[in-house]
Amino acid sequence: MLLRTPFAALLLILVQWMSGGGLLRAADPLPSWNDGPTKTAIIEFVERVTDKNSQDYVKPAERIATFDNDGTLWSEQPMYFQLAFALDRVKSLAPKHPEWKDQQPFKGVLEGDLKAVMAGGEKSLVQIIAATHAGMTTEEFEQIVLEWINTAKHPKTGRLYREMVYQPQLELLAYLRASGFKTFIVSGGGIEFMRPWTEQTYGIPPEQVVGSSIKTKFELRDGKPVLVRLPAINFIDDKEGKPVGINSHIGRRPIFAAGNSAGDRQMLEYATIDNPHPAFGLLVLHDDAKREYAYGPADGLPDSKIGTFPQSLMDEAQQRGWTVVGMKHDWKVIYPPLKK
Amino acid sequence: MLLRTPFAALLLILVQWMSGGGLLRAADPLPSWNDGPTKTAIIEFVERVTDKNSQDYVKPAERIATFDNDGTLWSEQPMYFQLAFALDRVKSLAPKHPEWKDQQPFKGVLEGDLKAVMAGGEKSLVQIIAATHAGMTTEEFEQIVLEWINTAKHPKTGRLYREMVYQPQLELLAYLRASGFKTFIVSGGGIEFMRPWTEQTYGIPPEQVVGSSIKTKFELRDGKPVLVRLPAINFIDDKEGKPVGINSHIGRRPIFAAGNSAGDRQMLEYATIDNPHPAFGLLVLHDDAKREYAYGPADGLPDSKIGTFPQSLMDEAQQRGWTVVGMKHDWKVIYPPLKK
Repeated sequence: MLLRTPFAALLLILVQWMSGGGLLRAADPLPSWNDGPTKTAIIEFVERVTDKNSQDYVKPAERIATFDNDGTLWSEQPMYFQLAFALDRVKSLAPKHPEWKDQQPFKGVLEGDLKAVMAGGEKSLVQIIAATHAGMTTEEFEQIVLEWINTAKHPKTGRLYREMVYQPQLELLAYLRASGFKTFIVSGGGIEFMRPWTEQTYGIPPEQVVGSSIKTKFELRDGKPVLVRLPAINFIDDKEGKPVGINSHIGRRPIFAAGNSAGDRQMLEYATIDNPHPAFGLLVLHDDAKREYAYGPADGLPDSKIGTFPQSLMDEAQQRGWTVVGMKHDWKVIYPPLKK
Repeated sequence: MLLRTPFAALLLILVQWMSGGGLLRAADPLPSWNDGPTKTAIIEFVERVTDKNSQDYVKPAERIATFDNDGTLWSEQPMYFQLAFALDRVKSLAPKHPEWKDQQPFKGVLEGDLKAVMAGGEKSLVQIIAATHAGMTTEEFEQIVLEWINTAKHPKTGRLYREMVYQPQLELLAYLRASGFKTFIVSGGGIEFMRPWTEQTYGIPPEQVVGSSIKTKFELRDGKPVLVRLPAINFIDDKEGKPVGINSHIGRRPIFAAGNSAGDRQMLEYATIDNPHPAFGLLVLHDDAKREYAYGPADGLPDSKIGTFPQSLMDEAQQRGWTVVGMKHDWKVIYPPLKK
C-alpha cells in the first residue's frame, strides 16, 4: 500500500497535466482549414448540436447534411466535369455516327468549336445528353462513367478529374459523419453520373446521392432485368428543385447545407430559415485564381459564367448569417496529395 | 493452485455443457415464426451472406432489403388503409365543401356508398386524392397524417391501423438490420403518407421510404420556406415502377425483396434474377381467414380483388425459387400484443 499510493497519485497528476496541457486534446478535425472565424464557426456549430447538455442538441437521426457537388466538393472549371465527360463521349461515339461530321452540335464538339456548340443553347445540350447519356442500361452507363472517371484528366492541372476534389471538404464530410451526421450530395449534376464514384471518393453511398435524372424503364431483356435509360428529362435538381429533391429523397430538412452558387440558394433557405433546429449554411467562394479559379462577386473578380455566385447571393448570405468560405484564406490546400 | 484447478476445470465443463446444450445458443431472432422450411430458408440465407468465410459473403454496404408495405408489413383489407384515410379526410373536409353533397365521388363517400365511388374508376380516385392529399404544405400534411394514424381504428379488429402491422415482419426487419442490412420500404402507397410513422413503427427512417408521390413546389411563404403539395401525379411506385423507384432512391439492387402481390413481381425479379450476389425473394400469402384475411390463388380461396396474388405469380415464385410465406402456418401470431 505504501509503495502503491504515491505511484497512483503521480499517475493522476500526469494525466491531469496531459489533458490540461493539450496532449490529450482531440486531434484537429479540419487540419486543412486555416484557423479563423470560418473554421471556428463550423466547429462551434457541430459541438453545439452534438452536446447532449446543450439546448440546441439535435438527435443523430435529424443530423442531415447536404452538399452541392460542382464547385462545392470538386472544381467546375473551365466547364462542368460532366460536360467534359459528355464531349469526350461524343468523340468516342463519333466513328459510329459519320453523320455527326456535318451536324451541329456534334460537328462543333468534334472540331473543338465550343462556340458553335453553345450557339445552339439548351436544345444543343439536350441533344448531347440524349446521345451520350441515354440508350443504354443503367449498368452499362455505370461502366462508361467509371472508365472515364478513372482515366480522364483535367486540361489545366493534369490531374484525374476525380483527384480535383477539395481536401478541406473531404475533411469536413468526415468530421460531420464522425459527429453523427448523415452526409448527402444534392447536385444539379446527373445522379447516375455521380453514384459510381461518390462512395470511394467522398464516402457517400449511392442511396445518399440526389441529382438530376433522365427517365428509365424496367424490362426483362433476354430474361434479365435491366433499366433502360431514356432520352427524356425526369427531374432537374437545381434551384427550386433542390428542396424538392431533398424532400423526395430524404424527407427531412437538412441542418447543414453547403453550396457555391445561385443554384444552391433555395437549398440553403430550406435548411436555415424557420428550421426548428439550429442550422448552418455554407457557401464556397472561388477567390483563388492561383491555386484554383477565381469567379464571383468579390472585389476585382470577373462575373462568373457558370456556377454563378452573384452579388445578390452574397447579400443574402450576410443577411441570413450564412458562412462564406474564401478558398484563398480559409483553405491551406485545395486538392489532396497525389498518390504515388 | 491445487485448490483452483479443479474449480477451473469444473467451470470449463459447465460452459461446454451450457453452450452444447443450447443454454448459450443465440436467442431465436424470429420468435413469432414457426419452425419450418420458410424460417430455415430465411435464416440460412442471412447466415450465408453475412459469414465472412462464405463465398457468398456480401459486404454490409450491399445488403439492401426492400419491403412492400400494404399486405406485406401491415394489413390491406377491407381496403388499403391509405384509402380509408382519404375517405375519412373527405368526411372531415365536407363542412367546408357543401357542394360535395351532390357531387360524385364525394357524394358516395359521404353517404357510405362505396359502389358509387368506385363506379367512377380511376378518375374518381384521382379526384379524391387531389381533394385530400394536395393543396397544403408537406409539413401540414404530415400533421394531418399523424393525427389520423394515431386515432383511426380498423372496422373489424378495433385496433388502430398502425397496430395492424405484422409482428413476424417486425422481427424480420430487426433481424435483417442486426445482420447489417439496410431496410427500405418500397410501396405503391404515398411516400408522404408513410414517412410520418414508419420510423417509430418499423424502425425505417424517412430517407429509406420509397413510394408513390405527387408533385411539390418550393416557395417562400411569408418569408418561410415551404413545399406545397400539388394535385398532379409525380411517380407511381408500383409494378415496373418499383425497380425504377429503387434505382432512383437507392441506386443499388436489393439482395432481399419482400412483397405480397402482382405489384411486387418486378421488384422481386429485379432483386433475384442475374444478381451478382445471392438474393432472396419473399412473398406473403394471405391464407388465414380466421386471424387476418384469406385471398389469393391457394385452394379454396376466392380470387383477390385488391393486392392480387394471381396464380401466375405463384407459378413464377416456384420457378424462380422465391419463398412463399403462408401466414396460417408460418406465423405464430399476426399482430403485436396491444400496449395496455
